[in-house]
Amino acid sequence: MSAPEQPPGGALAEPSGGATKNLGIIAGGGELPRAVAEAARAAGRSVFVVPLIGSFSEDWVKDFPHEFHSPGEPGRIIRTLKTAGAAEVLLAGKVDRPKFSEMKLDAKGMLLLPKAIVAAKKGDDALLRFIVGICEDEGLKAVSVAEAAPSLVAGEGALGRIAPGEEHFGDIIQAFKIVHALGALDVGQAAVVCEGLALSVEAAEGTDAMLARIATLRESLRGTAARKRGVLVKALKATQDAKTDMPVVGVQTVRNAAAVFLAGIALEAGAALILDKAAVAAEADRLGLFVFGAKP
Amino acid sequence: MSAPEQPPGGALAEPSGGATKNLGIIAGGGELPRAVAEAARAAGRSVFVVPLIGSFSEDWVKDFPHEFHSPGEPGRIIRTLKTAGAAEVLLAGKVDRPKFSEMKLDAKGMLLLPKAIVAAKKGDDALLRFIVGICEDEGLKAVSVAEAAPSLVAGEGALGRIAPGEEHFGDIIQAFKIVHALGALDVGQAAVVCEGLALSVEAAEGTDAMLARIATLRESLRGTAARKRGVLVKALKATQDAKTDMPVVGVQTVRNAAAVFLAGIALEAGAALILDKAAVAAEADRLGLFVFGAKP
Repeated sequence: MSAPEQPPGGALAEPSGGATKNLGIIAGGGELPRAVAEAARAAGRSVFVVPLIGSFSEDWVKDFPHEFHSPGEPGRIIRTLKTAGAAEVLLAGKVDRPKFSEMKLDAKGMLLLPKAIVAAKKGDDALLRFIVGICEDEGLKAVSVAEAAPSLVAGEGALGRIAPGEEHFGDIIQAFKIVHALGALDVGQAAVVCEGLALSVEAAEGTDAMLARIATLRESLRGTAARKRGVLVKALKATQDAKTDMPVVGVQTVRNAAAVFLAGIALEAGAALILDKAAVAAEADRLGLFVFGAKP
Repeated sequence: MSAPEQPPGGALAEPSGGATKNLGIIAGGGELPRAVAEAARAAGRSVFVVPLIGSFSEDWVKDFPHEFHSPGEPGRIIRTLKTAGAAEVLLAGKVDRPKFSEMKLDAKGMLLLPKAIVAAKKGDDALLRFIVGICEDEGLKAVSVAEAAPSLVAGEGALGRIAPGEEHFGDIIQAFKIVHALGALDVGQAAVVCEGLALSVEAAEGTDAMLARIATLRESLRGTAARKRGVLVKALKATQDAKTDMPVVGVQTVRNAAAVFLAGIALEAGAALILDKAAVAAEADRLGLFVFGAKP
């Protein structure tokens, strides 16, 4: 389509300004973009979505005004968002590192491609920062998920009924140290530590696979059905500026952590997202894990 | 048995001194202890082996004077080594973190157990340093594998016929950075980087499993049969003092790296061990990988 669709309520016709500034969401894969779009709309904002071809494969976007584009079409993306009246933009969700040779490019994309390839070689975060930077150069204000959808941000303390015990704080601290060290090198966002031993550390495979392999370790090293042990920590990479990629925990993360008998999950309060707090708390309570927001 | 066996040649009766000082090897699992024992013997030293119950499960030890002990019996281990005339000791091979509650303990082991548990909580290296420390307290000189078996130490440059290309040096440097950062936190010894992206990082699962999961990543991120990409780096942890646990590469490491289409393996010259240099070079050449010793 050549022009953005109007939402049923014609929300995009509203004048922008204040908390009701129109929000453009460049949407990758996973559950985050939907959570952000719905939370922002629930907070009274008009939302326009640009799902990225190659990364986005969800159905929910039909409930929002939207227009699909390739990540190689920054010119079209920006034009679309401006036409839709978006004053602020955020990039949410997982973006596959593109195969530059197969990507659909617009004129701006061709112009920027050499820089994009350089950015991509520095890591996924550098590529995301590059895309956000292009939007800012064009006068769109880049905002974080925390700004656009503050209800998703992890708070301090235990989310459900279970809190970490004294015996868990050493592992929580150690796992934060590991994730911060890895994050400074743009490696991953997550690590699991069990009684001082790093069981599993995330790189390109993602948190789900990182958790699953804990089951392959000897029982003496990890938790069991009889005794939950070990803590998952997810934290922002130092190379991430919170505008592009805060760590995310959802119900499935809780289930995956429970499946390998972890004692709980710890996040940095104010610097991580919880996709559905009520559901995550209920699932953590049901499965006997803590989900804890540590003071930054 | 209550007294160490004498080797057929009665080698342990020799007076110790100089390069022929009797060497005691406390042997964990894997191929390293055998390589060290054979290299040291080939260099003219008398060797006595204490295979650790619970970690050691090899057959070769029958070719050496030896006596099995539990890692909870430091008193007996030291007495055995002294009776055998060992002046120097080294701990080689993989030692499973013991289940302290199930471990066979001697009097010294019981006395030291609280400290050992504290050390174990700090990580595997802390535990190994603790065991080596006990030996040193008792007058045995702790030596590194590099000192006991210098022929195993990685040298500078390409081991086989294939050298890394210019395009690999960025990945080699990045992977060294990651391993050093992880090592400072006692996490792991190895990482794989492919064109700027950290594909896989080692924690408790070991290098073999860390390499194998690269096959589960999308082809766009990693090497393929048609095009080898990515570099494995193994390096000493900053928390390791080279007396206990230098990184080790053998023929199987080369095969595992080739199986996930890596371009090569890089080690720090002087700070890594290659179990059989001729065989590793031949296998690397056959499979089309480089094995490279970088200047420290």
